[in-house]
Amino acid sequence: MNPFLKAAFDEAQLGIQENGIPIGSVLVIDEEIVGRGHNRRIQNGSSILHAEMDCLENAGRLTASDYARAMLVSTLSPCDMCSGAALLYKIPKIIVGENRTFQGPEAYVRSRGVDLQIINDPECIAMMKYFIENSPSLWNEDIGLPS
Amino acid sequence: MNPFLKAAFDEAQLGIQENGIPIGSVLVIDEEIVGRGHNRRIQNGSSILHAEMDCLENAGRLTASDYARAMLVSTLSPCDMCSGAALLYKIPKIIVGENRTFQGPEAYVRSRGVDLQIINDPECIAMMKYFIENSPSLWNEDIGLPS
Repeated sequence: MNPFLKAAFDEAQLGIQENGIPIGSVLVIDEEIVGRGHNRRIQNGSSILHAEMDCLENAGRLTASDYARAMLVSTLSPCDMCSGAALLYKIPKIIVGENRTFQGPEAYVRSRGVDLQIINDPECIAMMKYFIENSPSLWNEDIGLPS
Repeated sequence: MNPFLKAAFDEAQLGIQENGIPIGSVLVIDEEIVGRGHNRRIQNGSSILHAEMDCLENAGRLTASDYARAMLVSTLSPCDMCSGAALLYKIPKIIVGENRTFQGPEAYVRSRGVDLQIINDPECIAMMKYFIENSPSLWNEDIGLPS
């Protein structure tokens, strides 16, 4: 597995240990990880802490020139909110572990100039499949569907 | 001023008192305010707590049927991130205090079926104009531009 995706995957695994939703993310600048996060909706009772949001928050307030060199890596295709955060900060590249179990607004994100690449890593797919099959209502809440 | 926009405006004023960025938001369900927030980027050293995000977080984890009856009110046109959060949760209506000083992805949000209404309230415009003129670098950081 790509080492940055592996770091995002490890974040997702931390989420499982906390009985949370197994999605992880890292922010990479100049080949270094500057922020890590995982979905904390269950753990924090949060409506906004998807993995990518937690990752961006943990990276702290960065400058536009930092974000211009950044790559956001997530185990799962970013939803509308997380895609929007990447667009706000003009992050030019997004690496997606998989988009088989959920697909965010990828075409729109690409239309805004982002280089969005899908890996469809088998471990990422298996991790989300297991979670969705075992916790369908938590999952539906996470993506704004009736649970 | 519309009472819900006034509540969002009051949140923005709280932000000024805290030396923060003067943008406020409320979430309304069945004519009742269920969440309030204001931009806390400065106060919390946050990269994600725009007013609408703070408001959604303060409203807590709601169900899809709650969001389906909700209206998000903001003193300023929501940026990509905050618009994306509204899209994630399928919030059907957004009331915008003004879009003269900043304009989010309004056409895209409308293309996704959201009823997005712009008021262009003079007090909201004056509040942001004053802030942008006096704190241009903070403002540019808030919207992902070089500061």
